[in-house]
Amino acid sequence: MLIFRFFSRFSRGLALGMLLAFGAQAQADALPSWNDGAAKQAIVNFVQTTTRQDSPEFVAPAERIATFDQDGTLWVEHPMYAQVMYCFDRVPVVVKAKPELAKVEPFKTVLSGDHEAIAKLSMDDLFKILAATLTGISVDEFKAQAQQWLDTAKDSRWKRLHTELTYQPMQEVLQYLRANGYKTYIVTGGGQDFVRLYSERTYGIPPEQVVGTAGGTKYGYDKEGKPFLTKEPKLLLNDNNAGKPEGIHLMIGRRPHAAFGNSTGDQQMLEYTKAGEGTRLSMLVLHDDAKREYAYGPAQGLPNTHVGALTQTLYDEAQKQGWVVISMKKDWKRIFAFEP
Amino acid sequence: MLIFRFFSRFSRGLALGMLLAFGAQAQADALPSWNDGAAKQAIVNFVQTTTRQDSPEFVAPAERIATFDQDGTLWVEHPMYAQVMYCFDRVPVVVKAKPELAKVEPFKTVLSGDHEAIAKLSMDDLFKILAATLTGISVDEFKAQAQQWLDTAKDSRWKRLHTELTYQPMQEVLQYLRANGYKTYIVTGGGQDFVRLYSERTYGIPPEQVVGTAGGTKYGYDKEGKPFLTKEPKLLLNDNNAGKPEGIHLMIGRRPHAAFGNSTGDQQMLEYTKAGEGTRLSMLVLHDDAKREYAYGPAQGLPNTHVGALTQTLYDEAQKQGWVVISMKKDWKRIFAFEP
Repeated sequence: MLIFRFFSRFSRGLALGMLLAFGAQAQADALPSWNDGAAKQAIVNFVQTTTRQDSPEFVAPAERIATFDQDGTLWVEHPMYAQVMYCFDRVPVVVKAKPELAKVEPFKTVLSGDHEAIAKLSMDDLFKILAATLTGISVDEFKAQAQQWLDTAKDSRWKRLHTELTYQPMQEVLQYLRANGYKTYIVTGGGQDFVRLYSERTYGIPPEQVVGTAGGTKYGYDKEGKPFLTKEPKLLLNDNNAGKPEGIHLMIGRRPHAAFGNSTGDQQMLEYTKAGEGTRLSMLVLHDDAKREYAYGPAQGLPNTHVGALTQTLYDEAQKQGWVVISMKKDWKRIFAFEP
Repeated sequence: MLIFRFFSRFSRGLALGMLLAFGAQAQADALPSWNDGAAKQAIVNFVQTTTRQDSPEFVAPAERIATFDQDGTLWVEHPMYAQVMYCFDRVPVVVKAKPELAKVEPFKTVLSGDHEAIAKLSMDDLFKILAATLTGISVDEFKAQAQQWLDTAKDSRWKRLHTELTYQPMQEVLQYLRANGYKTYIVTGGGQDFVRLYSERTYGIPPEQVVGTAGGTKYGYDKEGKPFLTKEPKLLLNDNNAGKPEGIHLMIGRRPHAAFGNSTGDQQMLEYTKAGEGTRLSMLVLHDDAKREYAYGPAQGLPNTHVGALTQTLYDEAQKQGWVVISMKKDWKRIFAFEP
């Protein structure tokens, strides 16, 4: 009773902060963009089972770690990862500074604008483009360049900034887990420095809770003797497949209690999470909504041309291992926050 | 007024939590083990300047990062890093499993127990010992082995567990910074997996806030198909010298506002921190107390045989760059919590 009298005198924000600080769970529906069903129920059950003091599966607050893949799990990855679009968009700038690259592959193809030829570039070509556009510059230069792109580049279908194309139901899961004491991490195959630029504003996840594919940096001094870091073309962590649990060990040092992914690149993270003691939650987002988003992977519709998209094999493993599949079509009332 | 009436109805712990949550600063002396002087004043000034809402140098809570070297900054590093002692202590076990090593250097020398010969081992020899004792085992096996050592091995001078040999004044700095919204990190040349085992209990720093020298791990499956990680003899991050700011960028992604070190291995971290905009604090612990701890480096007394001990050159740079030197002898009322 006291708590309600107290609330009445303070702002709603403060009251909410208090509620969370005191460990009380929100009684109202924390997942309003989810339809009732097995997926929503699995999330709610997991939170209740691991955070209720009297639960035999109670997880100490310090151990509450949840990890989320980004591309295809938290935001749209189709028709191309946003960061790859960024690198393609940077190619003309890089070529302007080094005109000799204009006649060299794969830069020549990227500059041609021939979508079909670009789609056929090999992984080796892609790495050359990533190295040319993401490295050899200072960390601060990279931040400024990428931030400008993020603030202006629009997706071709919805004509919105990429950071607006996050899945509202997953935003609710992030908030719901945090409200119950979970530390939320992004564990992405995407570039760590890139995702860290917007993770706090977009997902409420601070940069230090973003684990991603990471290159080395090199410490040096400018002309005035002021130290700075240069991004090097040296891969430290390929945060895909087995690299995800390895990256989690490196950067977090604890096994997650919940993990969310959508592709073969997430398989090992989901296995590693589920193999821990006690109640663990592993979930896979199935892209089966051609109308509101895209359908690919086992949901067919679009051909599965993605690196690491959800394959039939992975879908079958999910069934076998007790991972819960999230159907975008059936489980999500709405996909984006901007939908009416 | 309301807030005081509110306090009276709740437990003291809860009231303290509220006080911190609301950003109020502790008014009592937060650094009771420090003598009044320039070092203590620098810490208090830094906290007040960066956390008072009306300060022109106010730092947003999310940006409040403070990094601490461990060996020689938070706990005793003399006469040998605790983790190196651990590795030497593991050698007989490793040799028992692989008897052929008994006749091979540097294992032969370590087994001889000849302190003089052991002290002369090269860095290459040391790396062989580290690789043999720290890698080729699962992460869980390593944790169990190292934990057992940490729970039992005693320092030769004080006859106490190594985790008891932390500097009480630095523990107070950690707590004081955290009470004012700073996220505290250990950034150590020591092994990340090793320090993470006791960081939470010993310093109140969770494993994910320990950045250290880190080797790779390899994801695999046991006979029952259960996934696990094996520690590999592959160096990912040498968290010393330039590796410290590089490691901070990799693991945290923000420049610290305060950094604490004691040796040449910390130079770049202190430079990098101090070179940031606004008020930044870089501090160096000087080991000049032969009676209560040790005296080495420019304080002489003991010869400077440490990898990365505080040299005269570094001490001179500290003066030039505006880093604040902490004299253990003059600035610290007591060194350890167990002192009367």
